Amino acid sequence: MGVVVSLDKARGSGPGLKPLLDLVENDMGRLNELIMSKAESHVEMIPKLARHLIDSGGKRLRPVLTIASAQMCNYDGDDHIPLAAAVEFMHTATLLHDDVVDESDMRRGRTTARILWGNEASVLVGDYLLGQAFKMQVDVGIMDALSILANAAAIIAEGEVMQLAAAQNMETTEDEYLTIIKSKTAALFAAAAELGAVVADKGESERAALRSYGQNLGLAFQLVDDALDYSGSAELLGKNIGDDFREGKITLPIVLSYRRGNKQERDFWKRTLQNGDLRDGDLEKAAELIVKHEALGDTQQRARHYGDMAKDALAIFPDGKHKSALLETIDFCVTRKH
Amino acid sequence: MGVVVSLDKARGSGPGLKPLLDLVENDMGRLNELIMSKAESHVEMIPKLARHLIDSGGKRLRPVLTIASAQMCNYDGDDHIPLAAAVEFMHTATLLHDDVVDESDMRRGRTTARILWGNEASVLVGDYLLGQAFKMQVDVGIMDALSILANAAAIIAEGEVMQLAAAQNMETTEDEYLTIIKSKTAALFAAAAELGAVVADKGESERAALRSYGQNLGLAFQLVDDALDYSGSAELLGKNIGDDFREGKITLPIVLSYRRGNKQERDFWKRTLQNGDLRDGDLEKAAELIVKHEALGDTQQRARHYGDMAKDALAIFPDGKHKSALLETIDFCVTRKH
Repeated sequence: MGVVVSLDKARGSGPGLKPLLDLVENDMGRLNELIMSKAESHVEMIPKLARHLIDSGGKRLRPVLTIASAQMCNYDGDDHIPLAAAVEFMHTATLLHDDVVDESDMRRGRTTARILWGNEASVLVGDYLLGQAFKMQVDVGIMDALSILANAAAIIAEGEVMQLAAAQNMETTEDEYLTIIKSKTAALFAAAAELGAVVADKGESERAALRSYGQNLGLAFQLVDDALDYSGSAELLGKNIGDDFREGKITLPIVLSYRRGNKQERDFWKRTLQNGDLRDGDLEKAAELIVKHEALGDTQQRARHYGDMAKDALAIFPDGKHKSALLETIDFCVTRKH
Repeated sequence: MGVVVSLDKARGSGPGLKPLLDLVENDMGRLNELIMSKAESHVEMIPKLARHLIDSGGKRLRPVLTIASAQMCNYDGDDHIPLAAAVEFMHTATLLHDDVVDESDMRRGRTTARILWGNEASVLVGDYLLGQAFKMQVDVGIMDALSILANAAAIIAEGEVMQLAAAQNMETTEDEYLTIIKSKTAALFAAAAELGAVVADKGESERAALRSYGQNLGLAFQLVDDALDYSGSAELLGKNIGDDFREGKITLPIVLSYRRGNKQERDFWKRTLQNGDLRDGDLEKAAELIVKHEALGDTQQRARHYGDMAKDALAIFPDGKHKSALLETIDFCVTRKH
């Protein structure tokens, strides 16, 4: 199979997360300490399972957004740490439940908690972390922060249900797909960034700017994630398409390939992805169609569009190292290769 | 099989929920309306699945406790309604997740949501309802109420994980079992009742009294629930024991039968419940042992003990129709047959 789809052309040492991580470095120790301590419980299975995921080397991008946003808003208290930890816990709870819903075996290169400890424990420990997230927010006691995160919790779940309902439906439009990722992914990015302004007691214009930054960054992040699922070696491409076939998971590369296809090609997608009727050579055929319709490059292009919106959202903040690190974070999310 | 175990001796028209339900009647319409409206979503599957459970004729005992407690504390505002709805949503979310964890096919005489719409949707709609519960609490904006419910959310999940870890462990002690039901069941009863005092802005002594009332009522309620699983016809008894064998579920009737048994009897429980090695005649044998060791009557007796504690907890409140209805509710929970 000669198809190689890659997003890796001509990138040397591109934009990275380093400037952002350098800025929050002093707070990260406290954040990680709090995260570990709030994952504790006298019920042994809880910290064991929770730490498996918490320690697995995730980027902690969402809580970092909260901390960096708070710093950019000149916040000099301590409440941004528990709020950031609450954001990370909500994210972790979502991942635990997601892996159950998607029947995933691997996450961040490790066997998933549900495989090691069972679906039951993953559901319940997710619930526990959600409870702990709310407790931390209550301890901080800022009603606007509570409102933002309670809202995000409901919207994320709504997005996940939408995704479930859209599974195996090839008629899903790009708009519908966007509505799904806006809820399931971008809502928490938006909340994470807005919390920085809230904890610093800034007004609605800063809150709206950071919310918009987070939302569009989240959209770009998810779009690139969905494109990356199909990038890399042809072998990997085949494997990922195989997984998506099994789950009937509809992401933008698939939406574009389907909608741009002719009658015969659409019938192919319906037979395979919608009806789950897979035959020899189907994975290669799917890879060819994705390439033929330039679905990956255009997904990437859409991500740049939202990245641009995220950049403009930050315009109201004065130039400085925080703003420039948050801007570079957009470029990183749009151009990242993993 | 000639064994009939029954809790039904000599009860005519015993204590009931009617006095309590009469008192809250005017508020129940508003409560139900709010519950239905907050189960709404533009994502079709959410209200469909949520209403399946919400409409299934549950007693709404927990939110009724919040409303009645608020009334007893002379509260005359409207905030007790959304707080009560939040309590019911937390309960509903727990049931949805429980049914997934226990792989239950039936709940309140109906096919479970997870059978009709899948485990995935049940997990996610549970998450949505939890998010909606927090949103309602935030809208009310009483920080102490938020604290109570966030706490309850974490503790309930902790109890569920404990129960999971105790499954198939015949060495579970009565104390460990009590710790589990205190968390998974009594914590929400305690929260529900305490919220009535909180919304009425009462002091710590009223809050503690109602918390204690709720906690002990919850313990009694769960103990009777566990005894009822084994009551009724011999046929039903066999079926329920069969289900518990399959799940390895350890409740007090089992704990007592095991601990009071001789070596041979304990080996029987280990082989069947712990190791899941079931043979012809085992269900009958289990039923006989439960009867022999008077495990049901004594579980009932334990429930009366907690019921008595719940009664004494209410002593600080002046006599009146609310107090007497809440007292009768204890008797109902302890003597109920369904």
